Amino acid sequence: MKAACIQMNISLCSKKENLERALSLAEEAVSKEAELLAFPEVFSTGFCYDHIAEVAETASGPTIGALCDFSKEYECILAGSMIEQRVGAEFNSEMNIPPQFNLGFCIESGKLVGIHRKTQLYGLEKEYFALGEDIHPIRLKKYDLSMGLMVCNEIRYPEVSRKLALEGADLLVSASDMPDFYIYPWRIMSLSRAIENQLPHIACNRAGNDRFSTYPGRSFIADGWGRILAEAGSEECALIGEIDLEKIKEIRQTGSIIEDRRPEIY
Amino acid sequence: MKAACIQMNISLCSKKENLERALSLAEEAVSKEAELLAFPEVFSTGFCYDHIAEVAETASGPTIGALCDFSKEYECILAGSMIEQRVGAEFNSEMNIPPQFNLGFCIESGKLVGIHRKTQLYGLEKEYFALGEDIHPIRLKKYDLSMGLMVCNEIRYPEVSRKLALEGADLLVSASDMPDFYIYPWRIMSLSRAIENQLPHIACNRAGNDRFSTYPGRSFIADGWGRILAEAGSEECALIGEIDLEKIKEIRQTGSIIEDRRPEIY
Repeated sequence: MKAACIQMNISLCSKKENLERALSLAEEAVSKEAELLAFPEVFSTGFCYDHIAEVAETASGPTIGALCDFSKEYECILAGSMIEQRVGAEFNSEMNIPPQFNLGFCIESGKLVGIHRKTQLYGLEKEYFALGEDIHPIRLKKYDLSMGLMVCNEIRYPEVSRKLALEGADLLVSASDMPDFYIYPWRIMSLSRAIENQLPHIACNRAGNDRFSTYPGRSFIADGWGRILAEAGSEECALIGEIDLEKIKEIRQTGSIIEDRRPEIY
Repeated sequence: MKAACIQMNISLCSKKENLERALSLAEEAVSKEAELLAFPEVFSTGFCYDHIAEVAETASGPTIGALCDFSKEYECILAGSMIEQRVGAEFNSEMNIPPQFNLGFCIESGKLVGIHRKTQLYGLEKEYFALGEDIHPIRLKKYDLSMGLMVCNEIRYPEVSRKLALEGADLLVSASDMPDFYIYPWRIMSLSRAIENQLPHIACNRAGNDRFSTYPGRSFIADGWGRILAEAGSEECALIGEIDLEKIKEIRQTGSIIEDRRPEIY
């Protein structure tokens, strides 16, 4: 299966422009036969804190709608993250919880087939986003596969990908917004998540810059040995890599890490 | 504090020769002011399966004795692993448990101050070694530090180093016997263990070869950002690196991974 990282430059708070850019790069990817496309974290807005209530949408809003249309037209899978407006956030009993989630989404054949709300927030995010409470892989019908979707800072917690692997994930996808100073640790940990779970990893990071930082891309697609199948530089691009679905099981059966775990002593 | 990896070639089953070689390289390391020295996995024997009962010793045997003498003479810390003869292994009720452990040891100022029996065995090791049941850091008096000691295959389980970090480890030390085909995954995961726990890592691997495999060394000493402070090639050597003890706490306080963990959802 051909996978793609849509390593895009994100224009802060410019939702229309970002969505157009994302879909333009996605068209390039599907024209090269990519069937599973990953976008960076909060791809449609960046961390638009100053206008976060205005740019937030529900999962039935126009952004997911546009992605579903694209997915239906090109019969492909789309995964990434966006700023979600929390339903019920107006309740008084929830006043101390921010009215947004960082929503990981997965769309297949024109439908939203799964979500994953970011569970490990970093720095300022804690003021603007509520914490996701569940970690489960997302089932993809067409390929009879489960996707373990992670959002940015979650990569620093091996617990997250481990939970996904233990619940049957067949591949990992991560959507990141990693700045230049953290790109080396991000790359090491992202590769380690593939190796220690013996799963392919489609790791999509952002390119370009905004008023907060510079984002040096370096998105990659790796197999379950952590071998790089495709890797981007720092420029905006649609990175394409071929994942051998037959080999996923084969790699996991080689001295199985998962089977030999000893949760009773950790 | 200067640390060293004694990246030695191990001669299968030749205990006297290996101990001499280890101490000779250790002398080189202390002459360069190393205060904490890590040896590879089963440094004194290799995986001497054909004569394992003969080479196995208890922790009060001559091998640990020789290391204690060295540690006392040079006022240094020594850590590594050896084949331990299990006490009580002759009991009928334990007949199905192999009579050896893969014993991680830590010696300070002439005394055995802590052990860590390997908890995650790989392949053939399962036939020859009983499983260790405890994961705790080892307290070093002189430096007021706790060492998280791991043995080879344990590096593939992020759970092991995480447990050590959660129990207060200030640095990680790993003793490995990693063959050529696994050196790339080993390096990625070993660096990831440093970064995801925000702890320095002294990762000592074996050099040379035996009838099982070739061992390409690549021992390294890294800080809590995963930055390489010193790294060896494939030759036998005493690799020296300087760990800034003051910076250990500073790095851990930068967007603390450990504090933000959410064990209730993993």
